Amino acid sequence: MDKYAERRAKVAAWLANKGIAAAMFEDTEGRRDPSIRYLSGQPGDSLLFVTAKGRSVLVPWDANMAARYASADRVVPYGEYGRQAAKALAALAEDEGIPHGALVELPAATPYPVYVDYAAEVENLDFTCRADGVDEFVLGLRAVKDDAEVALYRRAAAITDEVADEIERMVREGRAKTEADVALFIERACRERGCEGTGFDTLAAGPGRSFGIHAFPNYTAAPFATEGLSILDFGLKLDGYTTDVTMTFTRGKLDPKRERMVDLVERAYSEAVAMCRPGTATRDIALRVEAIFDEAGMKMPHALGHGVGLEAHEAPWVRTREDNLWKLAPGHVVTMEPGLYDPEAGGVRLENDVLVTETGFEVLTRSRIVRL
Amino acid sequence: MDKYAERRAKVAAWLANKGIAAAMFEDTEGRRDPSIRYLSGQPGDSLLFVTAKGRSVLVPWDANMAARYASADRVVPYGEYGRQAAKALAALAEDEGIPHGALVELPAATPYPVYVDYAAEVENLDFTCRADGVDEFVLGLRAVKDDAEVALYRRAAAITDEVADEIERMVREGRAKTEADVALFIERACRERGCEGTGFDTLAAGPGRSFGIHAFPNYTAAPFATEGLSILDFGLKLDGYTTDVTMTFTRGKLDPKRERMVDLVERAYSEAVAMCRPGTATRDIALRVEAIFDEAGMKMPHALGHGVGLEAHEAPWVRTREDNLWKLAPGHVVTMEPGLYDPEAGGVRLENDVLVTETGFEVLTRSRIVRL
Repeated sequence: MDKYAERRAKVAAWLANKGIAAAMFEDTEGRRDPSIRYLSGQPGDSLLFVTAKGRSVLVPWDANMAARYASADRVVPYGEYGRQAAKALAALAEDEGIPHGALVELPAATPYPVYVDYAAEVENLDFTCRADGVDEFVLGLRAVKDDAEVALYRRAAAITDEVADEIERMVREGRAKTEADVALFIERACRERGCEGTGFDTLAAGPGRSFGIHAFPNYTAAPFATEGLSILDFGLKLDGYTTDVTMTFTRGKLDPKRERMVDLVERAYSEAVAMCRPGTATRDIALRVEAIFDEAGMKMPHALGHGVGLEAHEAPWVRTREDNLWKLAPGHVVTMEPGLYDPEAGGVRLENDVLVTETGFEVLTRSRIVRL
Repeated sequence: MDKYAERRAKVAAWLANKGIAAAMFEDTEGRRDPSIRYLSGQPGDSLLFVTAKGRSVLVPWDANMAARYASADRVVPYGEYGRQAAKALAALAEDEGIPHGALVELPAATPYPVYVDYAAEVENLDFTCRADGVDEFVLGLRAVKDDAEVALYRRAAAITDEVADEIERMVREGRAKTEADVALFIERACRERGCEGTGFDTLAAGPGRSFGIHAFPNYTAAPFATEGLSILDFGLKLDGYTTDVTMTFTRGKLDPKRERMVDLVERAYSEAVAMCRPGTATRDIALRVEAIFDEAGMKMPHALGHGVGLEAHEAPWVRTREDNLWKLAPGHVVTMEPGLYDPEAGGVRLENDVLVTETGFEVLTRSRIVRL
């Protein structure tokens, strides 16, 4: 049994246990869901139908791609259903012998009007669609990396560090002068080292633009790492899994305000990482960092961190919201990324990827604040 | 009144006419909606609340960014509502004097479980959420480019052509040898020419990978434009608006099958473009291309085209589906992109952006099939 079949077997068992006859997963423009890749190997643009009896049918937009990548009991090109999900769903339920009146789970991301259409067009099935259903179950599986996934993360982290080190050298030696120089170096370097590409749009923001949490546009021809604070946030995607790190480059003697922002972020980062161990509530880590910034009269406008994996942002979440009940567990890979931003002074953020181990933590990547 | 306020006034009038007190728009990770940018100038990551009385409130994730870009009657940082949409919605309705029991429209992309939460958490409002509501109205506005938008498209098209011409030269002279060479040239060249970046992930697929409609990964260190069929699909984003073109590079004497695929695509492309004039049903154009391929015993696995604008794929749609009722109108900018793919022979696609004028059409970009 390949790893995809093993994962689907877990989904089937979960469905059977909940009395759900089948679940549909969907990856489409505007609603990406890498669980399709996690469960079938197909990179995307597909429906995946998994039954409680353990059968799986992949319905890919691109059948040629599926022939190369996909693992599933059956593959039916989406074109056969006129590329209409409700039509595909009705046919698959029929083909797989799902009894009339049985319960079928739809993706949690299904838009309300689309849900209404399913219910109208597929009359002989009953539907459930919820935030805490089968998607959340799969996200929970994805949050805990197995040994092969951890090994992959070590390789991805090593490549990320190699690229970060080279960027620091290029900046120090004046070989990278603009945001585009740095961002495009990453695009090329990661592919030369076997990555699929970057895991998300690289954010390279020189001193004039680092005030934005997510610089817009994400990089430009503007100067990078000149006097003041520059932020570089990037991730490399290896076999689908992405790293996510942020370096800040400072140049020149910083004024007291910037110096204080940098110190606070470094301190918050160290304390946050040190708290990473199995059983710790991620909310407590985020609250600790909030307290550090609060004491200094500052406020972080984003969450402290998040899991990484087939998505750049996935479970477990690391934030102060009261509904965050996540506790760290061995195999979690999370970012810790405190940051502070000021419309005048610019921004500073430090981010690395942390693996939670049986006994504590291991920082996989080595990003840092570089003082020039 | 700035252009954003003018557009919001149209939305307000539409709401008033339909008896809807207010509409909420949302741009968030996993549910991008450039209508936020169209209506407020804010690049993204925000809620936008527009009332039938013509008031607007922007709730940005990044308040610094909003201070630089946004137009709205009021701006309230998302953090003030704990970055929770239902909480923000309840508070905004209260602040803006929306009466209890009034009807508020939610984004059509709202997931079913999120809709259920809104309904539970915001008890004193009534909600509507549909595919053919306010979002569709705004998409209809966006589909018809005004004079300023058309002027912008002419500039974006000129830059796109300049980049395409240089790529052809680089390939002919052996200065671009890999998929990455070509894709990274585009990333740099577009920014040097004032673009925000690419409008979507560039697809550069050499002969070994061009069988995929959307090559995966999107580009690699593999050879490009060597013997056989190579596809290059890219778009440049200028002030938010993206072009979308595809070139195919062939090298060497093609075998009869490949030759036939190339001829068919060129013929389908010419016939499709020639049909572009106001009043023509886009479905008829797509059906004509389907007929051309059918006669030859071939099948195109994707739609013939789509509108371009703040999104790479937006209305009007150009496809054979029976529910496609779009008719071309002056100001529409649509792609025409017939393509054929074979697991062994590879793929060929030709795509340009076509402006519909008062009397016919104007092809804005000059992509072509390059025979080496």
